[in-house]
Amino acid sequence: MTKRNIAMLQGKWEGDLVQTNDWYQNEALKLKDKNIDLLVLPELFHTPYFPFEENPDFFKMAIQKEDPLVAEWQKIAKTLNCVLVFPFFEKRSTGIYHNSAFVFERDGSIAGLYRKSHIPDDPAFYEKYYFIPGDTGFEPIHTSAGCLGVLICWDQWFPEAARIMSLNGAEILIYPTAIGWAANEPTEIYERQKNSWMISMQGHAIANRVFSMAVNRIGIEGELTFWGHSFVAAPDGFLIEDLSPKHHGFQITSIDLSEIEENRHWWPHFRDRRIDQYQDILKIWGTP
Amino acid sequence: MTKRNIAMLQGKWEGDLVQTNDWYQNEALKLKDKNIDLLVLPELFHTPYFPFEENPDFFKMAIQKEDPLVAEWQKIAKTLNCVLVFPFFEKRSTGIYHNSAFVFERDGSIAGLYRKSHIPDDPAFYEKYYFIPGDTGFEPIHTSAGCLGVLICWDQWFPEAARIMSLNGAEILIYPTAIGWAANEPTEIYERQKNSWMISMQGHAIANRVFSMAVNRIGIEGELTFWGHSFVAAPDGFLIEDLSPKHHGFQITSIDLSEIEENRHWWPHFRDRRIDQYQDILKIWGTP
Repeated sequence: MTKRNIAMLQGKWEGDLVQTNDWYQNEALKLKDKNIDLLVLPELFHTPYFPFEENPDFFKMAIQKEDPLVAEWQKIAKTLNCVLVFPFFEKRSTGIYHNSAFVFERDGSIAGLYRKSHIPDDPAFYEKYYFIPGDTGFEPIHTSAGCLGVLICWDQWFPEAARIMSLNGAEILIYPTAIGWAANEPTEIYERQKNSWMISMQGHAIANRVFSMAVNRIGIEGELTFWGHSFVAAPDGFLIEDLSPKHHGFQITSIDLSEIEENRHWWPHFRDRRIDQYQDILKIWGTP
Repeated sequence: MTKRNIAMLQGKWEGDLVQTNDWYQNEALKLKDKNIDLLVLPELFHTPYFPFEENPDFFKMAIQKEDPLVAEWQKIAKTLNCVLVFPFFEKRSTGIYHNSAFVFERDGSIAGLYRKSHIPDDPAFYEKYYFIPGDTGFEPIHTSAGCLGVLICWDQWFPEAARIMSLNGAEILIYPTAIGWAANEPTEIYERQKNSWMISMQGHAIANRVFSMAVNRIGIEGELTFWGHSFVAAPDGFLIEDLSPKHHGFQITSIDLSEIEENRHWWPHFRDRRIDQYQDILKIWGTP
C-alpha cells in the first residue's frame, strides 16, 4: 500500500498559549476516524511568532520533552492513529534553545527529532537571537507513513538540505513554516514573494522527485501578516493542494508514494549527478 | 551601468545544415543596431537534434574551433557588438566529443568555453552515446555583459550546478536547451512536464538570487516536439519573459543586474548556508 492521507493544520495565534493549543487540539481531534496517516502542524504553533523581537522573557515559552504539552500531542497521535509532525520551541538545556520538531508514531512514541539547521535573521524575524543552528543533520525520519524529510521554514530556501534528505531516503519533504509579510516591505511584491517561496520548494520536489509540502500559519501578529498557502506538491512539482490564507483548519490530501519511483524512472536525475564536480558546494564563496 | 538587453533566438531545424545556419544568421543580423548586450542561441542549434538515435554517421556533424562556422559567428558577435553564447557539437579530438558552448566577446574573441556536465540518456535522447561529460566544471565566464553561468539543457535539473556557478560569481544562469515531448509519453502530462522544467530553473534563480534563462528550440523532428518557452526569470524567480512555442525568431528582454544585490540584501540565503552539514552531497546515495 503506497497511498497516504496527509492532513495539514493551518492555524493562527489565538491570543494566548492555552487558547492556541486548545484550538489546535480541538481541530486535530476532528480528524479522528478519518483514516489519516500523517498530520503536520505549523512551525512553533504553540507560541506566538515571538522572534519578531529580541526579548529574554520569551525563552520561558520553550519546552522540553518532559513538558505535558508533548505528552498531550503524543496522545493525539495515538487517538488519531497517525504519524504526527509536532514543531516546538525546544529548550535543550539552560541557555541552549532550538527551533525543532518531534515526529510521533501512530502509537504515540517518538520516531525522531529534527532541529532547524538554517536560522534566519531579518527585520521582524530575529531567530538567531533564540535558536542555535541544529546539529541533527539532514537525516530523514522513518515512520509507518513514509520516510519523512522534516525540515523547518528557512531550510526551504536551501537546495542542499532537500538534496541530502532525499539522498538519505526521504519520500516527503515536510516544511512546518511561519512566513509572512513584514510591514516594512513594499506591498507590490507580496505576491512575488509568496510565489518565490512556493517555487523554491516545488523545485526541491522536482530535483529529487519526492513529495514536498509546507504548513504555514495565518493571521496577523504585530507587523507580520502570515500568508498561509500551506501546500502539497507532487514529485514533478505540481501543486496537488494549495490552501487560501482564509482557510482556518485542517485539510486532507491523498497522495501515492509510488509516484516517486515512476518519476525517477522517467526523469533519472540521480543517475547523472557529477559528484566529482561538486566540491565547491562546501565553500562559503568560490573565490578567496 | 547595470542594465542589459538580452536577446534570445528561438528557432528550429530547417531541414538541412546550411538552411538552418542561414536562418539563424539572418535572424541574428536583424539585431544590428538594437543595442543588445547578449545573444543566446539554443543547444546544438546548427544541427538537427541528432541524439534521437545512435548513429555513427552523426559524429561527422561535430565541429572544431577552426571550423568556418565558428569564425562566422564570431564575426556576428562583432557586427552586433554583443556577447554571444554559441552552443555547438564539439569535436575535441578523434573519438572525443562534447555538447559545448563558446562565449564570444563583443570584439568576436573567445571569452570562454563550457562543456555540458550532466549528460542525459532517455528514450529519444541518447546523448550518452555522443557526448563525454564535460570537464570544464562550473566556472562562470566573465564578459562585458555580465558574469555568465553557462550550463546546457540537462544541467538545468541539478541545483548543484546552479549553486556552484553562483558561488563562483555567476550573475545570469544561461541554459541553451533542446527539450521536447517524445511520442512515447502520455500527452496529458505535457503541460506538467513543461512546468517542471521551468520551475526547476526558476528555483535555481531563487536559491541563488541570480537571473536564470533558457533558450529552447521549437518544431517537430521525428517523434520529438520541441516545446519552446524560452524564458528569462528574475532573481526572485518571476518570469520576465516566456515565449510561446509559436514564437519563431528573436526576442529582446531588458534586465537590471543590480536586482541581484537588492535580492541578496532582502533574502540573505548565502549568509546562512551550513557548509559543515553538506558533505553528503558528494555521495551517490546516502546509504551503502
